Amino acid sequence: VDLNYPYTHELKVRFRDVDMMGHVNNSVYLTYLEEARTGFWEFLFRDNREFWKISFILASISIDYRSPAFYRDSIEICIRLNQIGTKSFSFHYLIRNKNSGTLLAEADSVMVMYDYEKEETYPIPQGMRGIFLSKGQ
Amino acid sequence: VDLNYPYTHELKVRFRDVDMMGHVNNSVYLTYLEEARTGFWEFLFRDNREFWKISFILASISIDYRSPAFYRDSIEICIRLNQIGTKSFSFHYLIRNKNSGTLLAEADSVMVMYDYEKEETYPIPQGMRGIFLSKGQ
Amino acid sequence: VDLNYPYTHELKVRFRDVDMMGHVNNSVYLTYLEEARTGFWEFLFRDNREFWKISFILASISIDYRSPAFYRDSIEICIRLNQIGTKSFSFHYLIRNKNSGTLLAEADSVMVMYDYEKEETYPIPQGMRGIFLSKGQ
Amino acid sequence: VDLNYPYTHELKVRFRDVDMMGHVNNSVYLTYLEEARTGFWEFLFRDNREFWKISFILASISIDYRSPAFYRDSIEICIRLNQIGTKSFSFHYLIRNKNSGTLLAEADSVMVMYDYEKEETYPIPQGMRGIFLSKGQ
Repeated sequence: VDLNYPYTHELKVRFRDVDMMGHVNNSVYLTYLEEARTGFWEFLFRDNREFWKISFILASISIDYRSPAFYRDSIEICIRLNQIGTKSFSFHYLIRNKNSGTLLAEADSVMVMYDYEKEETYPIPQGMRGIFLSKGQ
Repeated sequence: VDLNYPYTHELKVRFRDVDMMGHVNNSVYLTYLEEARTGFWEFLFRDNREFWKISFILASISIDYRSPAFYRDSIEICIRLNQIGTKSFSFHYLIRNKNSGTLLAEADSVMVMYDYEKEETYPIPQGMRGIFLSKGQ
Repeated sequence: VDLNYPYTHELKVRFRDVDMMGHVNNSVYLTYLEEARTGFWEFLFRDNREFWKISFILASISIDYRSPAFYRDSIEICIRLNQIGTKSFSFHYLIRNKNSGTLLAEADSVMVMYDYEKEETYPIPQGMRGIFLSKGQ
Repeated sequence: VDLNYPYTHELKVRFRDVDMMGHVNNSVYLTYLEEARTGFWEFLFRDNREFWKISFILASISIDYRSPAFYRDSIEICIRLNQIGTKSFSFHYLIRNKNSGTLLAEADSVMVMYDYEKEETYPIPQGMRGIFLSKGQ
């Protein structure tokens, strides 16, 4: 557990996650981030179901690969709010080997509040902002 | 092209399809069958949109792996109606290397007409049966 | 835990496992079987490393889909030796929702001892057969 | 075809690429980049097999998602050399809907020459640099 991160997600590397090179494939790390992100969301908004299914889009991801992961590795993904703007927010992630503590990757993602029906962005609701600031960092 | 099969679907093996052993992973063949199945469906019901989104479930799949597939291989999946009952139908598939003709796998799947709302099976509509029999084998 | 099965593998449904229909995609069940199979292998041959990396091929899989699985479901896969011949052996699998006990799928796979260098099948070693019979069923 | 890009890779969105939201999943775009990257590599070094399997690592990826992709979409990924240093090089990618031309995503990746045995980086060979500069941009 890393005290700088309010939420940590754990998972196991599957055989299918690994590619011909014997390492977890680069695209699969984004699946790991996705698992952490949805777990973090549940952690943040457990008691505020009005934000549970609020509509936003994933605008960008950047990831630095630091060390390869292997079949059966136990992985932990630490996640925290990084920045919050008027209509967007970003998360920072660490992906680590749970047993050795080795840093496997570091990543950031930006999400933007987006109304699919109106096809336009909208401001982060106040209540949601409050939870981000109190529980997300 | 195999004259015994009314529809053939082509695709390329992606790097991500291959596992640590250097072969296309066993689960990915079901993704190839799925591509062939949806292509076949479009082929069958192109002019009969009422059957385009008709509700059925995939009940079972059996697959025999005959020869490994590799990265960048061009694959063809031949598909035909195999059996048709009152409420269910089955497809037969060949998966082949398009260039060498090598048989990679042979498979069958059974589909059952199913109404998700009523949570019950129902008979294959007459029009759909007619198309299956005329264009599907 | 099912007393008829010597080994049970647990995993969580990832967001990426689910398809457009909102259910775990049919091909992903084979990834779940694969996880159970490699876990079972480790369970069987933990103390007999000579069989750890012994060479065989997956010859066939058949699977009956019984009930859909959903995002975040906790899954358990029960696995046991089903049949053993001179050169081949088969496993039987149950895939269940761990919390509700609902049967999600039932499957069989056949594996054949195969020497990739000689490109030929070979008999199951006696020691391996013994472990299969004592610990695998 | 985009004249600013020496190589364009084409592929089709598979059913399995799409997630519960009905869009191509964010992680799958990295699989598309990977396909383009290996195709570009073949394009660059077709006549220089000494660089075909040269050892490097993927150090980082950043991707901006611009517009969703859907099942059966025809995708094209344009790729070019972006920067080249002593020991590292980067590619820039556009992912577009082939039919409409809609920009789906824009991405960059950094690769570093890396010797897995010695566990150290090394300079880009002169011949490889020459091909990058003449054919890669």
